[in-house]
Amino acid sequence: MDARPNIAAARDKLLFTPGPLTTSSSVKQAMLHDAGSWHFEFNALVKRIRDKLLALAGLSSSAGYEAILVQGSGTFGVEAVIASAIPPAGSLLVLVNGAYGERIVQMAQYLKLRHEVLRTPEDAAPDLQVLDRMLGAEKGITHVAVVHCETTTGILNPIYQIGQIVRQHGRAYIVDAMSSFGAIPIDLGGAGIDYLISSANKCIEGVPGFSFVIARRAALLATEGFARSLSLDLLGQLRCFEKNGQFRYTPPTHAILAFEQALRELDDEGGITARGERYRRNQEVLAQGMKRLGFRVYLDPGVQSCIITSFRFPADPKFTFAAFYGLLSDKGFIIYPGKISQADTFRIGSIGRIFEADVRALLAAIGETIKEMGIRMN
Amino acid sequence: MDARPNIAAARDKLLFTPGPLTTSSSVKQAMLHDAGSWHFEFNALVKRIRDKLLALAGLSSSAGYEAILVQGSGTFGVEAVIASAIPPAGSLLVLVNGAYGERIVQMAQYLKLRHEVLRTPEDAAPDLQVLDRMLGAEKGITHVAVVHCETTTGILNPIYQIGQIVRQHGRAYIVDAMSSFGAIPIDLGGAGIDYLISSANKCIEGVPGFSFVIARRAALLATEGFARSLSLDLLGQLRCFEKNGQFRYTPPTHAILAFEQALRELDDEGGITARGERYRRNQEVLAQGMKRLGFRVYLDPGVQSCIITSFRFPADPKFTFAAFYGLLSDKGFIIYPGKISQADTFRIGSIGRIFEADVRALLAAIGETIKEMGIRMN
Repeated sequence: MDARPNIAAARDKLLFTPGPLTTSSSVKQAMLHDAGSWHFEFNALVKRIRDKLLALAGLSSSAGYEAILVQGSGTFGVEAVIASAIPPAGSLLVLVNGAYGERIVQMAQYLKLRHEVLRTPEDAAPDLQVLDRMLGAEKGITHVAVVHCETTTGILNPIYQIGQIVRQHGRAYIVDAMSSFGAIPIDLGGAGIDYLISSANKCIEGVPGFSFVIARRAALLATEGFARSLSLDLLGQLRCFEKNGQFRYTPPTHAILAFEQALRELDDEGGITARGERYRRNQEVLAQGMKRLGFRVYLDPGVQSCIITSFRFPADPKFTFAAFYGLLSDKGFIIYPGKISQADTFRIGSIGRIFEADVRALLAAIGETIKEMGIRMN
Repeated sequence: MDARPNIAAARDKLLFTPGPLTTSSSVKQAMLHDAGSWHFEFNALVKRIRDKLLALAGLSSSAGYEAILVQGSGTFGVEAVIASAIPPAGSLLVLVNGAYGERIVQMAQYLKLRHEVLRTPEDAAPDLQVLDRMLGAEKGITHVAVVHCETTTGILNPIYQIGQIVRQHGRAYIVDAMSSFGAIPIDLGGAGIDYLISSANKCIEGVPGFSFVIARRAALLATEGFARSLSLDLLGQLRCFEKNGQFRYTPPTHAILAFEQALRELDDEGGITARGERYRRNQEVLAQGMKRLGFRVYLDPGVQSCIITSFRFPADPKFTFAAFYGLLSDKGFIIYPGKISQADTFRIGSIGRIFEADVRALLAAIGETIKEMGIRMN
């Protein structure tokens, strides 16, 4: 086996995952350059990217928000916010209905922050009445965090309704929009969001290597001295961008060149709405096709996002995920394991540089695979 | 101006910096693939890279060391060690003779770790007698950290002599070998190093996006519960590699594909010794050529590394770094500003995919530039 992924194949396997995603050839080709991270041309490019991210969020820099790039995966970006935003005497309430919410709780534990958790089942949205009561009763809570699209299941949480309650109680609001930003329009002002986090390699379809935070400037400026990590100090990075346009520490220059190209291709496609439409169509074709094959979707359609879909394992004990995954991989399709604690599921993503025709090809391969495995679907 | 760096030019400007560096075309072309980070082929590739890093350090995995990749720049890797290795009741002694040593002190401050600092001037190695006395007198110090090649100046610190003293006193030893690993052979066992940190985009000539830590396994396993950040939890990442071969959080897959190619090209060149020879030749040609042009090297040759060289500004007040930098950039060469607190200097790197002929081309451009600027060199 030549272990370089498919390096001898005509094309890479298609990634039906929550990331890393399949990206366009042109996005990858943008990485064929070495840029100096101290150089003025590169600094100008970073500034354009930061401004463009604000524009995608319906904001301008004069609207009082800042976009800040953070090296590392999305988790690094979320932890940068959690480690930088909460004051020493503050307390974080995390709304949890999946593994990514639990991960924010874990961060609070590592960072030794005071925190509370409001858990709901993985197939249900946060309980807004309980949230309202908790914020009314527990005056010590200063920040509320929620995951927009919980890719554990694919559920879409109601960030506007949550934001309204958080704002009524005068608390700060953190939204992990990792896998939704770029596909689902988000009105930061309207939702009352102080910090939103997403990543280069989700719906903007760049390559992995960095995450970004869109922060309300006044909120961020008030965090002086709070950061619990040098690398993850969000205000420190904003100050450096404002001083000389640079990253404090070597940025992933190639991933950033790819990201600029990805932003251009998002515009070319027609922006967030058009991209969201493509993903919705992908998800619709997927869900219908899987249903025809006899699979059952885990979530109720009312809370199902267009980003990723969890399917229950077929009841036939001959089904094993490892065999199913391997046979699909042999056919050129990579799917994703389940992450739900209460049910046996696998996941299929509908984001990245994949189109309806790719989804139909995947469906055909899945149909073939269940025949090969001799799985009874009814 | 088309702001994409040189996208219309026949070639990128050459980077004579401490990183990001100029890399080979083939290293960049390895990024033209999308790999699934959960996929077994990618996991096997990561394992090969981890084993290869140990081999480059003269170790095998059975020698009791582990190589762990950490998303983000080198600073993220260093902070992962500082945040993960020091016990709650521990104390860190940092040997400082430049900005990268100061950065470790900053980390200790952010992480609220007990720490001590032993400073020497930027052009002098750490004082070994004082180190010996401090470790003898201050029993609370559990860990000692030093930067191998301090790129502030280009000075090479004596990691073996320091290690001998640290070992005599039974303390743990952390070496930031960011810009030396891959060019200067390092015997981890011989130097008594418990944690060594370097980065993809230094002497191995990969692209930026992640750093790596080579840790003594027994030392790392004893750090359970110490990590002060989820993202930077080194033991957590080791456990995940051992459980399923995966990163805990989305890795920069493209940068990792590039790194495997870079490791192959390091072998093709003849390994660390041959690469170090090329850098030494680059530095020698550079230093001699600059001397002929009338520039003065900041450091004493006895402590000067082959990685990067600091040059004093010419005495002529007509010299400004901004103009000098800009004219060299126009000619296709990117140099680096100085970082020394006590002297006006600029820096020129000799690492990355650059050869003697490139250094001679740079020297010709510098000669031309000082003529254009009308600088008197004597």
